[in-house]
Amino acid sequence: MKRRDFVSKLGLGTVAGAGLLAACGEKTTQQDKSGKDFKTEYQWKMVTTWPKDFPGLGTGANTLARLIGEMSGGRIMVKVYGAKELVPAFEIFDAVSGGTAEMGHGASYYWKGKSEAAQFFAAVPFGLTAQEMNSWLYYGGGMELWHEVYEPFGLVPAAAGNTGVQMGGWFNREINSLADLQGLKMRIPGLGGEVLKRAGGTPVSLPGGEIFTSLQSGAIDATEWVGPYNDLAFGLYKAAKHYYYPGWHEPGTTLEAFVSKKAFDALPEDLQSIVMSACRIANQDMLAEYTARNNQALYTLVNEHQVDLRRFPDEVLDKLRSLSDTVVAEVADKDPLSRKVYESYKQFRDQVIDWHEVSERAYLNARG
Amino acid sequence: MKRRDFVSKLGLGTVAGAGLLAACGEKTTQQDKSGKDFKTEYQWKMVTTWPKDFPGLGTGANTLARLIGEMSGGRIMVKVYGAKELVPAFEIFDAVSGGTAEMGHGASYYWKGKSEAAQFFAAVPFGLTAQEMNSWLYYGGGMELWHEVYEPFGLVPAAAGNTGVQMGGWFNREINSLADLQGLKMRIPGLGGEVLKRAGGTPVSLPGGEIFTSLQSGAIDATEWVGPYNDLAFGLYKAAKHYYYPGWHEPGTTLEAFVSKKAFDALPEDLQSIVMSACRIANQDMLAEYTARNNQALYTLVNEHQVDLRRFPDEVLDKLRSLSDTVVAEVADKDPLSRKVYESYKQFRDQVIDWHEVSERAYLNARG
Repeated sequence: MKRRDFVSKLGLGTVAGAGLLAACGEKTTQQDKSGKDFKTEYQWKMVTTWPKDFPGLGTGANTLARLIGEMSGGRIMVKVYGAKELVPAFEIFDAVSGGTAEMGHGASYYWKGKSEAAQFFAAVPFGLTAQEMNSWLYYGGGMELWHEVYEPFGLVPAAAGNTGVQMGGWFNREINSLADLQGLKMRIPGLGGEVLKRAGGTPVSLPGGEIFTSLQSGAIDATEWVGPYNDLAFGLYKAAKHYYYPGWHEPGTTLEAFVSKKAFDALPEDLQSIVMSACRIANQDMLAEYTARNNQALYTLVNEHQVDLRRFPDEVLDKLRSLSDTVVAEVADKDPLSRKVYESYKQFRDQVIDWHEVSERAYLNARG
Repeated sequence: MKRRDFVSKLGLGTVAGAGLLAACGEKTTQQDKSGKDFKTEYQWKMVTTWPKDFPGLGTGANTLARLIGEMSGGRIMVKVYGAKELVPAFEIFDAVSGGTAEMGHGASYYWKGKSEAAQFFAAVPFGLTAQEMNSWLYYGGGMELWHEVYEPFGLVPAAAGNTGVQMGGWFNREINSLADLQGLKMRIPGLGGEVLKRAGGTPVSLPGGEIFTSLQSGAIDATEWVGPYNDLAFGLYKAAKHYYYPGWHEPGTTLEAFVSKKAFDALPEDLQSIVMSACRIANQDMLAEYTARNNQALYTLVNEHQVDLRRFPDEVLDKLRSLSDTVVAEVADKDPLSRKVYESYKQFRDQVIDWHEVSERAYLNARG
């Protein structure tokens, strides 16, 4: 890898030189004799799509802000806002794009209305796992494409969290065949929802806070959320007698941070590197946290709350897989940039599957 | 997670305050009026166990050094030395402990002569994958134990790279049954070597640079190295007609960085955070690189060089797994600290296997 590539992966490809006076949120400006600026202090706002301090997702945004403060010796202090504190969850993209805040934390599939291609940087049914996503983003051209997708909005993107494989969800009936999906009303957003629709179900979109009540009242028959750690926190096992199934639709959901390009360009180079580096740590750290906590939460769900853990029949998985291929491929038809991202993603996916057949998958099966 | 835990995970648990005068490698010292020190410059040496610029491992050490320089705005410049440039590969631990260099990059299983417990922080046969290792280290108590193991040597450890699942190796005969392992002379170090020995083989230890010739001459019957990317670079497929097998002995080898505690304590807090943060990025970045490059290299090996990719029979894997359990458990008998680390590792492993049965493993098989 050339040095330039690495710098570009950190999002430093098109930066202005160090020592530029800051246009956004600065408090004090001074340069030392070397011309390096270690004294300007920045006060940033980070808006998020999560309830304040929400376990894993919201606390991951807090971790990111804290790291930026620590590494910069307090030269950038980032204040984190939960959904609705400054702007509603699904307005954070516009808020940072328009300059209301310097930074955002969310998930790129929320912005498919801005660009269909954005969905590839979060989660794709039967797509890449967390490890594979990071490999595509940092060494497979993914990050460069993500920059291209967000550039028209004046935003610099970064991967900044990962949930790992999400669970397939909670169902009020056993799924023994494709027939059991017919008419199933399920809270499942994005591409996964479209797949369910083609399999005969009815996907609905609900914010997290409304899931429990909808499931309990019978307004929906099924729901997915994240995984044991978050599902336990929401008490979904109490909503009704439900069957719990492993996942297929979000195999390693990447969370994102994005920074106003104007604010980013105004930083000296070392602070630009610190902001992007903090995102990379947050990216890894959240996955490590979910891996440890899902584990404990699953124990609690199964052993203390007698949750009925099942497995989708092969017939159902085969159908969902083939429908997913179709649904994902159709995104490429939306516009030329979506096609470019789809083709990069698909090529990487096909190859890494072959490698993981003899490494990750073969190993997990051998370990048994 | 409490704030204290996160700081401790970054290795900042026992640091001196900011603004302390540096004892090691400093060039200039100045403090601004706030008492914060943004001006002292540090020149550090990083000694490594890898040949200079060795793909993946050596270039990963370079990445780490570069990140520290970038994030610190040049306040710490780290010069990387390949094996034998300053000290031989297996003397870097003593070199940093003794103050010859400020920092080292290697793998903790090389130091089992210093502490048997060190082996758990690199790779364990049928043990944790890369994702699981990071989870144990950052959220399962692993990092705290690693600090405890290295503390008597005046070293602050960090995870700073991961190869992912390593391949089982190259064999001059098909392994169709346990009988084929009898008398097999194989280059395989550490706990994996001990397992092979108990299965009837003869493990030998050889530095990377001697593997090709030994395999070609027939001095050894088999060897493991890393994976397709590194094995292709070494040209192992040319050494003889060989069968290539998936791995079991190093399922997610963690590479390490360690820093002289004296040098670390002398840094202001922001630079301490930067050094430890750079390690975390290097940790993730190397895994992303291997995941992408192994993939391409495996294609080349199989399609261009007609490498014969096989699979160990279940009988062989079952035996290796059961021998591994015994060999790993015996490490706990060496000393109380080894027992403490073993018990933490084993408890985490047992639980995360259960979670990954219904997430990572179930998903990879469903995608299959």
